[in-house]
Amino acid sequence: MSGFFGVASKKSCVLDLFFGTDYHSHLGTRRAGMAVYGKNGFNRAIHNIENSPFRTKFDKDLDQFEGGLGIGCISDFESQPLLVHSHLGSFAITTVGRINNLEELKESCFQNGMTHFFEMSTGGINPTELVAALINQKASLVEGLRYVQDVVEGSMSILILTKSGIYCARDKVGRTPIIIGEKETGYCATFESSAFLNLGYHHYKDMGPGEILYMTPNGVEVKQEAGEEMKICSFLWVYYGYPTSTYEGVNVECMRNRCGEILSTRDTNVEVDSVAGVPDSGIAHAVGYSNATKIPFSRPFIKYTPTWPRSFMPTSQSQRNMIAKMKLIPVQELIKDKKLLLIDDSIVRGTQLGETTDFLYQSGAKEVHVRPACPPIMYGCKYLNFSRSSSEMDLITRRVIKDLEGENVSDEVLKEYADPDSERYQNMCEEIRKRSKFTSLRYHRLDDMIESIGLPKCKLCTYCWDGEE
Amino acid sequence: MSGFFGVASKKSCVLDLFFGTDYHSHLGTRRAGMAVYGKNGFNRAIHNIENSPFRTKFDKDLDQFEGGLGIGCISDFESQPLLVHSHLGSFAITTVGRINNLEELKESCFQNGMTHFFEMSTGGINPTELVAALINQKASLVEGLRYVQDVVEGSMSILILTKSGIYCARDKVGRTPIIIGEKETGYCATFESSAFLNLGYHHYKDMGPGEILYMTPNGVEVKQEAGEEMKICSFLWVYYGYPTSTYEGVNVECMRNRCGEILSTRDTNVEVDSVAGVPDSGIAHAVGYSNATKIPFSRPFIKYTPTWPRSFMPTSQSQRNMIAKMKLIPVQELIKDKKLLLIDDSIVRGTQLGETTDFLYQSGAKEVHVRPACPPIMYGCKYLNFSRSSSEMDLITRRVIKDLEGENVSDEVLKEYADPDSERYQNMCEEIRKRSKFTSLRYHRLDDMIESIGLPKCKLCTYCWDGEE
Amino acid sequence: MSGFFGVASKKSCVLDLFFGTDYHSHLGTRRAGMAVYGKNGFNRAIHNIENSPFRTKFDKDLDQFEGGLGIGCISDFESQPLLVHSHLGSFAITTVGRINNLEELKESCFQNGMTHFFEMSTGGINPTELVAALINQKASLVEGLRYVQDVVEGSMSILILTKSGIYCARDKVGRTPIIIGEKETGYCATFESSAFLNLGYHHYKDMGPGEILYMTPNGVEVKQEAGEEMKICSFLWVYYGYPTSTYEGVNVECMRNRCGEILSTRDTNVEVDSVAGVPDSGIAHAVGYSNATKIPFSRPFIKYTPTWPRSFMPTSQSQRNMIAKMKLIPVQELIKDKKLLLIDDSIVRGTQLGETTDFLYQSGAKEVHVRPACPPIMYGCKYLNFSRSSSEMDLITRRVIKDLEGENVSDEVLKEYADPDSERYQNMCEEIRKRSKFTSLRYHRLDDMIESIGLPKCKLCTYCWDGEE
Amino acid sequence: MSGFFGVASKKSCVLDLFFGTDYHSHLGTRRAGMAVYGKNGFNRAIHNIENSPFRTKFDKDLDQFEGGLGIGCISDFESQPLLVHSHLGSFAITTVGRINNLEELKESCFQNGMTHFFEMSTGGINPTELVAALINQKASLVEGLRYVQDVVEGSMSILILTKSGIYCARDKVGRTPIIIGEKETGYCATFESSAFLNLGYHHYKDMGPGEILYMTPNGVEVKQEAGEEMKICSFLWVYYGYPTSTYEGVNVECMRNRCGEILSTRDTNVEVDSVAGVPDSGIAHAVGYSNATKIPFSRPFIKYTPTWPRSFMPTSQSQRNMIAKMKLIPVQELIKDKKLLLIDDSIVRGTQLGETTDFLYQSGAKEVHVRPACPPIMYGCKYLNFSRSSSEMDLITRRVIKDLEGENVSDEVLKEYADPDSERYQNMCEEIRKRSKFTSLRYHRLDDMIESIGLPKCKLCTYCWDGEE
Repeated sequence: MSGFFGVASKKSCVLDLFFGTDYHSHLGTRRAGMAVYGKNGFNRAIHNIENSPFRTKFDKDLDQFEGGLGIGCISDFESQPLLVHSHLGSFAITTVGRINNLEELKESCFQNGMTHFFEMSTGGINPTELVAALINQKASLVEGLRYVQDVVEGSMSILILTKSGIYCARDKVGRTPIIIGEKETGYCATFESSAFLNLGYHHYKDMGPGEILYMTPNGVEVKQEAGEEMKICSFLWVYYGYPTSTYEGVNVECMRNRCGEILSTRDTNVEVDSVAGVPDSGIAHAVGYSNATKIPFSRPFIKYTPTWPRSFMPTSQSQRNMIAKMKLIPVQELIKDKKLLLIDDSIVRGTQLGETTDFLYQSGAKEVHVRPACPPIMYGCKYLNFSRSSSEMDLITRRVIKDLEGENVSDEVLKEYADPDSERYQNMCEEIRKRSKFTSLRYHRLDDMIESIGLPKCKLCTYCWDGEE
Repeated sequence: MSGFFGVASKKSCVLDLFFGTDYHSHLGTRRAGMAVYGKNGFNRAIHNIENSPFRTKFDKDLDQFEGGLGIGCISDFESQPLLVHSHLGSFAITTVGRINNLEELKESCFQNGMTHFFEMSTGGINPTELVAALINQKASLVEGLRYVQDVVEGSMSILILTKSGIYCARDKVGRTPIIIGEKETGYCATFESSAFLNLGYHHYKDMGPGEILYMTPNGVEVKQEAGEEMKICSFLWVYYGYPTSTYEGVNVECMRNRCGEILSTRDTNVEVDSVAGVPDSGIAHAVGYSNATKIPFSRPFIKYTPTWPRSFMPTSQSQRNMIAKMKLIPVQELIKDKKLLLIDDSIVRGTQLGETTDFLYQSGAKEVHVRPACPPIMYGCKYLNFSRSSSEMDLITRRVIKDLEGENVSDEVLKEYADPDSERYQNMCEEIRKRSKFTSLRYHRLDDMIESIGLPKCKLCTYCWDGEE
Repeated sequence: MSGFFGVASKKSCVLDLFFGTDYHSHLGTRRAGMAVYGKNGFNRAIHNIENSPFRTKFDKDLDQFEGGLGIGCISDFESQPLLVHSHLGSFAITTVGRINNLEELKESCFQNGMTHFFEMSTGGINPTELVAALINQKASLVEGLRYVQDVVEGSMSILILTKSGIYCARDKVGRTPIIIGEKETGYCATFESSAFLNLGYHHYKDMGPGEILYMTPNGVEVKQEAGEEMKICSFLWVYYGYPTSTYEGVNVECMRNRCGEILSTRDTNVEVDSVAGVPDSGIAHAVGYSNATKIPFSRPFIKYTPTWPRSFMPTSQSQRNMIAKMKLIPVQELIKDKKLLLIDDSIVRGTQLGETTDFLYQSGAKEVHVRPACPPIMYGCKYLNFSRSSSEMDLITRRVIKDLEGENVSDEVLKEYADPDSERYQNMCEEIRKRSKFTSLRYHRLDDMIESIGLPKCKLCTYCWDGEE
Repeated sequence: MSGFFGVASKKSCVLDLFFGTDYHSHLGTRRAGMAVYGKNGFNRAIHNIENSPFRTKFDKDLDQFEGGLGIGCISDFESQPLLVHSHLGSFAITTVGRINNLEELKESCFQNGMTHFFEMSTGGINPTELVAALINQKASLVEGLRYVQDVVEGSMSILILTKSGIYCARDKVGRTPIIIGEKETGYCATFESSAFLNLGYHHYKDMGPGEILYMTPNGVEVKQEAGEEMKICSFLWVYYGYPTSTYEGVNVECMRNRCGEILSTRDTNVEVDSVAGVPDSGIAHAVGYSNATKIPFSRPFIKYTPTWPRSFMPTSQSQRNMIAKMKLIPVQELIKDKKLLLIDDSIVRGTQLGETTDFLYQSGAKEVHVRPACPPIMYGCKYLNFSRSSSEMDLITRRVIKDLEGENVSDEVLKEYADPDSERYQNMCEEIRKRSKFTSLRYHRLDDMIESIGLPKCKLCTYCWDGEE
């Protein structure tokens, strides 16, 4: 994932932009950037944040920035924002999304007379540059933004900083959110709604799917109305959104509490000493479960946050191998001789949770009951740059199904495995349980999980669980 | 505070030392250092960690370190470890403590022929250098360590790295802990017991008060038996120890859960919607309270850990002013129209909790009931370098007492204010409640809090609450 | 100016590229870059060198580079080399030159379907990106290079690194040089011929004007024959080339020695104690003068090279103001009561030489006779990015002429001022002498200076002196 | 070697100190430091300058420094200046010198009650700390300085910065210089006299041997008169002093010119095409030779100063091996078919000059006549930290003598080899000539060289040539 933040202010936007962008630090680990427009023109900085936090890297740049308009991003992939000069003028652009038909779009650009793209140091072209090229083929920025929404397969939300204001375009079916905040001095646009709270903004509006706005310090103008269809990613609530954020009116922490609560309603006869969540995102699910069942909540392992706010990559390989297990420190007194019910947000490849469970047994746990806060993940995401699921065959579900059914599994059989009322589903779950040595395993049901969110299913993307596009 | 870690290994100690020291990052914010002894002699690195985490700064040094013996520290004050050459040979030394009679000891050194101390860039002499000077006045390191234990007023725990092993000396009355861990390749000594768990060490022993050990890769030898008297700091459990650590057999997280539980037993008729803790140390107290009362636990504000693992100091003043409030992000859905019971580890100056409460009311909270996890702090700590209480007159208790009693308050009257059964105590609490606009305020009682720890009162330092030395 | 270096080697090209590029450090002060192609694809690094030398900045990158093909540059303006992906494949490109019709060429690109250029952080588009865009409009790199040579007004020499070899294209009329070196393991292409000597290359050939070569580790193939017309910049020898370089068979140091020698032949009755050169480029001219006249050579001021290898920009303004005079340290014993003959490469604005002369008088010099090694500079260079002459009206000649003739001076009158046999020329020189307080002033004559180079005048650009295009 | 600079100013001393210290950059390559006393007390910074120039490293610190009193150093060995706190108060200290009886003095400190010294990261104690310890044994700084002059074997010049002024103590027999400069705002003390010229100071006085001064912004007070005996290092003029400096009234550049001139008087029948100097220090000798003989001066190789202002150490070994030969770039046109007379300041191990000569022959030189500007070096310096002569047996003279005479050579025989009128001397020179393949070799005679300096022999240290202490 990646995240972005934009500000249009009557005063200097720099500190708001700095902190607002920084509050997206959980969404990306590779590059970060800020672009500001002020009386000295555009100014832009991009830094590698693989081994150092955003604030440390950009703190040194702040003196050079001035102006009321700015955009920033935390990016898990390409360098951003880009400064572009075209027949539409000069602008800066940042994006959140994924382009599945990148090769095809690149070729169409070449055919329309585009001569070249820059190559990233990691190879390949910069998707944000491709988006800029597509926009520049049209007669205005708004037409260009519409064109991108039409032709990009995957998802694409965009901020464009011009000399007079900021264009905000949410993905056509709203797979990722953009929220607008307001305060006396102006407006901001943000991926994480909570990013603006401490800066004094209040909620102005959630952008609708495909909506395009033009934001200046003096107001927000709708350039394209929101569309009907919405497919916002459900995983935002389950796993990767920050607990303090609210998307489509639904707060993440509250959804997770509710998710744990509903998850517990189908557990009638489990007897455990405590309920625990795998940090960070499992915690709030576990709190909800505990509050509903009155089974004590506990923290049998605690993340060492002073050191592991994010997974920085050490330079030596010997250190890298040690890192996986270093984030969580156990509290043996809360593990030994205990029956634990453990809630993780999801099970992807199963490796990490398997190791955690091993560790709990080694530390003396008597039972480890696992309750993932969402259904089994059956399909790799094709809409967002979601680092968790690189290949579908890495998924523990697909590996188990392959062992049970052989190499070629039909779509119908797969769908059956995704149905919690089927026998195949039961077999798969039991096999996963055995491999991972969980005392018991029960996944959240999709209908229950959707109820936790509280939005109609048709508004939500549930592709990774049920394959529905 | 500061913290240290030492390793004596048959193999390279470097990675254990690096990660073991890093796990003390919550204890200091100014300097950090590592010293290793190997076939190329001593190697030492010290870095400023005010604006960058330990791991980022020392990662670059790792290639230069080799050897099986090493010590490291996270320091809130002086540069450490120091490399010293004396009639006792060459050694590296790091300390955790506070020297109240520094001037007097410095003069005695001058009188014994010591010619100079180095001056720190912040002025004054480096307390660890003074400790080295005291040690070097004696005929052996062990005699020197005993001498320091005898003459230093305050507290002083020490690690000394020689060419053949590491001397560990715990403070004379054990105000701060040293725990010894063991694994196949050797031993480690650490302030935070949890620092060794992920490195594969198991608990070997807690050092006793005043105990002096000599640690090599092959064993641990007692050089001075532990003393009878112990006065370990109670605040380790209440506030500044890491939840995963266990001192004197009592785990911090468990103590806090129990502390919240016992705290709740005196609340018979409070009606609230949820119980919350002020991050980080209030959380576990709140969990205990919630588990005991079955009142739901909630997180109405969440620390943004990707960014605020620790309070780095930005270079520009305008940013600094914004920082205080930036760490915690509210979840408005969990605040608006809610009656909250809020547990903080303690109230020192009262400023921060007052602002938090203001913020909760502004966000729509109906009631804010406050339950500090320890009694009112009446006396500034004189045993540890404890940044929380710089001047006694900053304490909210002392400010209120001054307003109630005038400038000169006798020790007896002060003692009365510290007695939870006195009327003066009640008046003081009510006054604090009113000033801070808490709906209700009830402090933990000292006897209850001590019960939460579970050690005899005589083993604990409770000076800041009852003035008993 | 800027300079570049390229290598095609059967082994790793990295160290040759690193040192070869570094040997162009006198040609640029803003950005430097290296791009290498190896088994992991392209790798590229660009750094700001305004405050730190090339080697310090790129030393850290060397471990990441591998491969046999590479190009590098020291750039006084834009970030380079650029990594480009187009219908011609992926390549890296670096340029030395100046584009006077940049706006027009940019518009033509837009009309041919190009959608955008990136904007540099300093504003404006990157000229090297424009060159890439022009090349990519054609069906092959060679056609593209030819196209650039045809349409760019100014000058343009180019290196293009592909996956299989390096294309070298010298400016159409050879305003800047490219020399090819050869050794057992392959070939190199360089602006400064001396850059390859210490790396073991020997001279293979000078590229001719407009020539295009394709260079691989195994050979050098002519893709376009050199043209007839040549207009190489005469200033390369007089001032900005490195003394160890040889262009068109004429070594810089030798030309300067000869220049000083011929300059002396018209001085029949000057009586001075010593001949001195203004460091760095005046030195060799002065040596030639001294050797010819037997008047002692001396160094009345010496450049402090440990500190001023190049003019790094300090961050504080107060320092910047001190810098101008800090490079040269006087030797008072060689100045006091002396009659000096001082040779500078040229007089541009006259400010610096005026200050130097003032300083000499203050230090006790009796006479200061000035002999610039080239004629009066009358026209600002329009072919190279030549930082010395930003505006023609900054030239001391033009300011004097304006005072003598008024605002609007006809081209004919200007030409007359450029003729050393005219009265107007004599008046101008006398006026400059008076303003600068030189005891005497005699410029080199253009015909004499051309004789010092030894090439036919038609092969040389002499625009800045006589306005001939 | 090392060098230092001190300022006492009525205004801020910071920029003067920064540039004044920087002008000693040719004297050391390992550490540099600055200490300033102002209204916020002492401030001190020390940086590693092995891979980055002084100005780049300290530029960032300037904002933090304020005050009118400061000292700085460029050090080839230990970290300096040290901030010391003793019964004499707080002060900063920096030294230039060498302590041969360091172990003995360290032991005496221990016996007087000193408990420890710090160990440097490279092992061993910091000589400047030892000097501080010795000073602090006395009742006043001046007594302490005298004591150091008395007990240190080797040489020792010292600057001490106190809260009110700066103590300057020149080595007892003046082996290294200290010059005092004066301007309206105050005074400075410097090793290199030329360091103050561009900062607006004029010469106030040369300190005499053993002299101790106390310098404030308002004046300079003599605390101890200069002694009679002087033994200033002759090599200052021959090799390592900066050409712009003047010690004991004798300028370095002038001495070198004269040295070359006198050197030429004994060459009656040498026929060469040109005279050249090995950069940097050979240049001025060669200029003197050429001016006297009217044989043309030429620069057959030129130092690439933009890159090699100093020998920074690259991190990778493969680069290090390339460095030795990279500094000098040849001008083949000035070498091929030429008979060259080459002047180097001295021949130490002979390796480098041998390689240079090889290179000249390979480049087509017909003859290479070598004229070292000083006599054969026979003894390693024992008075200064002089990196050129680490072991006496590395000297080419001693290796040749060993081959001619066998292992044990008596002092008398050695003295004979040092006598230019002896046959042994002639044999040794001829052997060196043959080994190095010089066409001819003639060293300067000691009496001629002393004449070039112009001071009485008794005032000069000539130990490395004639062994006289």
